[in-house]
Amino acid sequence: MIKVSVMYPNSPGARFDHEYYRDKHMPLLKARMGSSCKYYTVDKGLAGGAGAPATYVAMCHFFCDSVEAYQRGFSPHVQEIMGDIPNYTDVSPVVQISEVVVERS
Amino acid sequence: MIKVSVMYPNSPGARFDHEYYRDKHMPLLKARMGSSCKYYTVDKGLAGGAGAPATYVAMCHFFCDSVEAYQRGFSPHVQEIMGDIPNYTDVSPVVQISEVVVERS
Repeated sequence: MIKVSVMYPNSPGARFDHEYYRDKHMPLLKARMGSSCKYYTVDKGLAGGAGAPATYVAMCHFFCDSVEAYQRGFSPHVQEIMGDIPNYTDVSPVVQISEVVVERS
Repeated sequence: MIKVSVMYPNSPGARFDHEYYRDKHMPLLKARMGSSCKYYTVDKGLAGGAGAPATYVAMCHFFCDSVEAYQRGFSPHVQEIMGDIPNYTDVSPVVQISEVVVERS
């Protein structure tokens, strides 16, 4: 299984609508990807290490069976999904694909 | 609930022993934190966006009821847990605490 992490860098004054992200954007992603997205998680940054601000204002991680399953589910809807980003933020996210070594322990 | 993300920046030649991390370090963290750590996940970086290398060579995320529960569980063992890091990497991790907005959807 793989995990796609979408991480929005934090900065002073960064605009991020956490409610829209939770209530509209992520359900849109799930609806469009269908069973290609097994499930997802959403985080809101609170703090970094040693009292610093959080590195990321928000993150999501969504889980797919494979890179191919991710691409198959995501690619046909990339325009609609990416086009929704300005509705909740002006931050460009960092994207990473990871192998899920431990899903839950 | 909060999530503590520990993210190890990737670089050419970065040393990271994924097996040690999965089999020794993370079980040590869980054992020392006890019920303060509800569960954890472990990721191995595969790729970044648009064909770039992964931003993080590895990540873990561990889940606690609150920031206070995290500090209560982690602080007494910080020296032992941090002291184990050189056994699997020479990379200094980025740490972030997040509010879990969606645990699984």
